[in-house]
Amino acid sequence: MIIDCHGHYTTAPKELLTFRDQQLAGITDKSRKPSSLDLGITDDQIRASIDNYQLKFQKERGTDLTIFSPRAAGMAHHIGDAQVQQDWARVCNDLIARVCGLYPKNFIGAAQLPQVPGGDLAPAIAELERTVKELGFVGCNVNPDPSGGMWTGKPMTDRYWYPLYEKMVELKVPGMVHVSNSCNACFHTTGAHYINGDTTAFMQFITGGQQLFKDFPELTWIVPHGGGAVPYHWGRYRGLALDAKLGELTELLLKNVYFDTCVYHTPGLELLTKVIPTDNILFASEMVGAVKGIHPNTGNYFDDTKKYLDQLNLAEADKKKIFETNALKVFPLLGKVMKERGIA
Amino acid sequence: MIIDCHGHYTTAPKELLTFRDQQLAGITDKSRKPSSLDLGITDDQIRASIDNYQLKFQKERGTDLTIFSPRAAGMAHHIGDAQVQQDWARVCNDLIARVCGLYPKNFIGAAQLPQVPGGDLAPAIAELERTVKELGFVGCNVNPDPSGGMWTGKPMTDRYWYPLYEKMVELKVPGMVHVSNSCNACFHTTGAHYINGDTTAFMQFITGGQQLFKDFPELTWIVPHGGGAVPYHWGRYRGLALDAKLGELTELLLKNVYFDTCVYHTPGLELLTKVIPTDNILFASEMVGAVKGIHPNTGNYFDDTKKYLDQLNLAEADKKKIFETNALKVFPLLGKVMKERGIA
Repeated sequence: MIIDCHGHYTTAPKELLTFRDQQLAGITDKSRKPSSLDLGITDDQIRASIDNYQLKFQKERGTDLTIFSPRAAGMAHHIGDAQVQQDWARVCNDLIARVCGLYPKNFIGAAQLPQVPGGDLAPAIAELERTVKELGFVGCNVNPDPSGGMWTGKPMTDRYWYPLYEKMVELKVPGMVHVSNSCNACFHTTGAHYINGDTTAFMQFITGGQQLFKDFPELTWIVPHGGGAVPYHWGRYRGLALDAKLGELTELLLKNVYFDTCVYHTPGLELLTKVIPTDNILFASEMVGAVKGIHPNTGNYFDDTKKYLDQLNLAEADKKKIFETNALKVFPLLGKVMKERGIA
Repeated sequence: MIIDCHGHYTTAPKELLTFRDQQLAGITDKSRKPSSLDLGITDDQIRASIDNYQLKFQKERGTDLTIFSPRAAGMAHHIGDAQVQQDWARVCNDLIARVCGLYPKNFIGAAQLPQVPGGDLAPAIAELERTVKELGFVGCNVNPDPSGGMWTGKPMTDRYWYPLYEKMVELKVPGMVHVSNSCNACFHTTGAHYINGDTTAFMQFITGGQQLFKDFPELTWIVPHGGGAVPYHWGRYRGLALDAKLGELTELLLKNVYFDTCVYHTPGLELLTKVIPTDNILFASEMVGAVKGIHPNTGNYFDDTKKYLDQLNLAEADKKKIFETNALKVFPLLGKVMKERGIA
């Protein structure tokens, strides 16, 4: 069983973008606001958008199950007010639920949350509860910078976030730290902002983690994209924590913080698996995501991360953890949902 | 000959901080402004601040020459007006020049530039010219985000920067992409902002590099801290460039962009030297810098990067490039200054 903990519905039918355009148009001209959250997308349209992409790649690459969330760059928490965010998250999450309904053995949902820069977290909490209790989702994406590259908000260890964390712990749902698109011209979305978001959040967990994980011992994070710059600079982070008398990172963070394998070349994954304990690594590909192309030398997709991992000659016990059992540990609801759906 | 291309004067006598406090006090109360740029620091004070730190470490670690610049986190381009920046850069650079004067065989200067967020680059250009022509400096630190973590400025490929680049090319001086301290609570200075700055600038060079390096074929950059997240995510960057029809990174950037070795563990440097062509790697330690402590397992300093490199069994020809000849290539003035000072 190979579980990919990080996939996005980047191939949704065009009706989703039409809805979004109308929704954004409605911000300045209320007459353009969509009259309904029903996008009029048929099951056949959804199948067409999945069969030739995520499902095809699952089969070709030999993976079994994807924890599937809306397009991350599409969340755009910096655009529109709380109502816009709520409608947008609901529409995107409902579409994920329909994919999971059509392919119950291949996709399990993770939520987009209707965050607003500096705003009340109550709508995000309500949507998280709805997606978990009503749609069967097992995870969520938490944007550490809902201002879209302006970084006007509070660090993730600030008490601002605590109401959301209480609900995540109550529901037994981990968070993937995942920024959305950048509205800052300095930051390329997938090449700079994504990676910076990961690095930034991890450093916040170092400086504020003692208190945060004392307050929420069960709070669990996945830092995606291989943890941003963190594993490559593990010595720097270890040294910074020791210099600040915060102890070893393993004790400070690694009961609560995990890394995915969205690193698109073998030497990167070799470093990740060498530096980070196997218990803290979850297989993921981010497909269909940041890099869509094919490697000119190998003829393989850049985001076919399983191929790189297969080259590393990892011990079977380690592979089992990375590909399967760590995900079952980090997503406590996953095993139950898989059982309900008859997934081995 | 081992040349460390990235060292900072983080141990300057306390008179420098006193001056700075008075200068900052002078922003709100002009009567507190320092009356002179003469800090009253004696040669003996400078010797005491160097002998037990950078010079001692050079000897202990077996390195020979450091390209030495003012404390990067001290630049703080986001604080004060153009005059404050000019005075501050001049004072800091003059102090570097005195260190180089006292230890001509051990230290060669690189400049702090008086940048102001969104401001005229003329003062930075004038100070660069002064430090190169009058003080014998061979490099400079260019802050890609003079707003200190607010990222309010233009990408480094924007024409805003062109007057500075013209002068850098004219003087044959490379730039090290180096942010200063962060005034954004989301970004830890050395754990997030530094690394993000490197990653961000590199991605800017990808998206805007074709034009930039066509306009300035001789413009040369060092991306410090091992290139931020870049080598770890080399597959991602390569894929993003290919997806955007920008070609291979080697062709697009590696005639103009170099990486230093400020990565504080062996697996990180193993990855760097495996992924990045040897011709594009310059030895550096950042000492005395971000991480000051000693590794608890080995008893070695975290920032003793030579020890990690020594473990990699690099070919002698590659070591020669990384430790010496690449620096002579990237800093075209270095060879001449070394000859003048009788450095072998």
